[in-house]
Amino acid sequence: MAEQFDAVEIIATKRDKHALSDAQIDWVVDAYTRGVVADEQMSALAMAILLNGMERREISRWTAAMIASGERMDFSALSWPTADKHSTGGVGDKITLPLAPLVAACGVAVPQLSGRGLGHTGGTLDKLEAIPGWRADLSNEEMFAQLEDVGAVICAAGSGLAPADKKLYALRDVTGTVEAIPLIASSIMSKKIAEGTGALVLDVKVGSGAFMKHEADARELAETMVALGTDAGVTTVALLTDMATPLGRTAGNACEVAESVEVLAGGGPADVVELTVALAREMLAAAGKDAIDPADVLASGRAMDVWKAMIRAQGGDPDAPLPVAKHTHDVVASTDGTLTRLDAFSVGVAAWRLGAGRSRPGETVQATAGVVMHAKPGDRITAGQPLLTLHTDTPERFERAIEALEGGYQIGAEAPVRHSVVIDTIKH
Amino acid sequence: MAEQFDAVEIIATKRDKHALSDAQIDWVVDAYTRGVVADEQMSALAMAILLNGMERREISRWTAAMIASGERMDFSALSWPTADKHSTGGVGDKITLPLAPLVAACGVAVPQLSGRGLGHTGGTLDKLEAIPGWRADLSNEEMFAQLEDVGAVICAAGSGLAPADKKLYALRDVTGTVEAIPLIASSIMSKKIAEGTGALVLDVKVGSGAFMKHEADARELAETMVALGTDAGVTTVALLTDMATPLGRTAGNACEVAESVEVLAGGGPADVVELTVALAREMLAAAGKDAIDPADVLASGRAMDVWKAMIRAQGGDPDAPLPVAKHTHDVVASTDGTLTRLDAFSVGVAAWRLGAGRSRPGETVQATAGVVMHAKPGDRITAGQPLLTLHTDTPERFERAIEALEGGYQIGAEAPVRHSVVIDTIKH
Repeated sequence: MAEQFDAVEIIATKRDKHALSDAQIDWVVDAYTRGVVADEQMSALAMAILLNGMERREISRWTAAMIASGERMDFSALSWPTADKHSTGGVGDKITLPLAPLVAACGVAVPQLSGRGLGHTGGTLDKLEAIPGWRADLSNEEMFAQLEDVGAVICAAGSGLAPADKKLYALRDVTGTVEAIPLIASSIMSKKIAEGTGALVLDVKVGSGAFMKHEADARELAETMVALGTDAGVTTVALLTDMATPLGRTAGNACEVAESVEVLAGGGPADVVELTVALAREMLAAAGKDAIDPADVLASGRAMDVWKAMIRAQGGDPDAPLPVAKHTHDVVASTDGTLTRLDAFSVGVAAWRLGAGRSRPGETVQATAGVVMHAKPGDRITAGQPLLTLHTDTPERFERAIEALEGGYQIGAEAPVRHSVVIDTIKH
Repeated sequence: MAEQFDAVEIIATKRDKHALSDAQIDWVVDAYTRGVVADEQMSALAMAILLNGMERREISRWTAAMIASGERMDFSALSWPTADKHSTGGVGDKITLPLAPLVAACGVAVPQLSGRGLGHTGGTLDKLEAIPGWRADLSNEEMFAQLEDVGAVICAAGSGLAPADKKLYALRDVTGTVEAIPLIASSIMSKKIAEGTGALVLDVKVGSGAFMKHEADARELAETMVALGTDAGVTTVALLTDMATPLGRTAGNACEVAESVEVLAGGGPADVVELTVALAREMLAAAGKDAIDPADVLASGRAMDVWKAMIRAQGGDPDAPLPVAKHTHDVVASTDGTLTRLDAFSVGVAAWRLGAGRSRPGETVQATAGVVMHAKPGDRITAGQPLLTLHTDTPERFERAIEALEGGYQIGAEAPVRHSVVIDTIKH
């Protein structure tokens, strides 16, 4: 059958700084999924998009075309309203673990389709897999049943959602075109919109440990995604949050689960609690339940009940002891003073090198590997006290993890100004 | 063996508007030729080069890396100095045919490695193949022997020259990245420098029938190529020449050979003679023979002697009648006046559609197909006189050729100002 368009003409349109028409976008995304547009053509187009940009209409249409490439879920038959959260990824970002049961305990169901980690940022599924017996792969029927019964599910995204995005993401990864904001935004939003949630809260991170190092870029990405959600009829809000230093006091897998359980038990680090409650508030508001204060619900212990039910429903034992690393190594303060800086990227790379993360898709990770932080920026330090404890089952990994931490923290005289984790809220 | 560089880092360097290092360029061109850098990576890099540009050092190094990917010829053992000419392609551009024997008749050998046509611009080899018996494929030994004996050879370029360029050109053709001036310039110059000529004259065409439609682009391309030749130690000069209207009074294959022979016999259209002599002057000057006036040599008939020897040396019969088309069609003037415009692109497309050109590499062309122009811009026209005669062996082609000519010529009251074919000369 004759094709409606020619790939070279579409590439030339964007190369010459013109907007692509709706019909051009529909065709090129579909033809790429079918293999009619070749990888070398799509990568040239991706580079032209990266360098010449896209207007809002183009990005919305591109997102819709990627959604149309696969199946679309629908939670409208549930007796609950739904809300979903997506984080652009950071170090120590275990927020989904306490957040999903907290929001469910407030009466809004959370269908959280998650991924595995790659590089220095961890993956939610990798963390939960530290819990004995817990499994990430659910059928659509199991997911629906669990959502109706428990109100929260965190599981692996099926391969049927936005297959065009999967193919395009793999291509962008090897062609230097990951960094295009229109393509990042449409990649995230196509999957999230295809997941069928009624409301979406985005946690867009900025800082050394985040994909976006500069606030202006993070803000542009957040604004683009909020516009895409709005255009697709999904109530969407974004929080711009700080990722200069890790979230909480742990970065790894089992150690982050333990910290999440502390938060559900009413304790845990202040920054993790702050961000969990802030995101819960936005999710409840987006789902039309803003009369409920998630801080009260967290204090009541009801979120912990949902957590246990959610873990049990996926085969896990929430009361079983978490695995412990065979080897630990302390990084010790050499001087008295105040911790003025603890760099998120350095800690993330250290945890990755200890075995908590993977270098390529499909690698296994160590449940026990990670970094426990005994101090956060602003804390008083005494010479000789442990600053960080590194955990791993394979001690030959310590050397390169310690290397990653060189220059990653600083002890000085003056205490840094403490900021809120949430930098800004972006709504339409 | 571990590779020295990572393709994604090199793409990101150019994407982020930085210059590539010599080592990065050497590696990426070599690794692409070896298949280590994939097509989808090279096309993303090509788009980044197209949009972000390259500085002179980068383009020179890129050209050198493409030359290094294959063999390099060396004519220094000849008893003659050598000079070569390259045209960026136009409609009715048969200049190589009279030019090569003329320059040889002046004492400078011309090793003219040529190509076949694609699209609306003809190929020199296609034209010469209209001569009964003539063959384009010579071994290196045959080429050397003919150059020493006759002083001129026009033959097919061997596949051993700049294989990186062949692979890259095929990729650019399907990825919308043909239009990058650094890549156009390095593609042309890598082949020309690898051909081993001592001096090079470029005919950079501008206008509707040329690849470059705007003078500023043509000038940038010409300046870039002159700089590349100079950097490689080859004396290089470029003429910027007009391609708004076809060169001469024929566009096709056999008809262009006939017109070239007229020029060698001392006649022929003024614009073809003007450009042939102008290019010959530059070639002679670049080869250090500027005391000889090619106009005198042309008038002497010695260029015709070299032509006949050159055609005979490659198996052709210069005295055999040229093939004649089975069918002709006249396009007739509907009004009296002056021909104010005859568009090169329209005539080129008409000749192509009549069978003189090909749509994809490997197609055969008709020796007899083409357009004969009975008037050029500025000529007085009488209603009812033939303006153009279309030639083809396959009369079903007339309809679409006539379509191509619609709006391609104009008869008006005022005579247009006649310009010289040569717009400017660009030297270092």
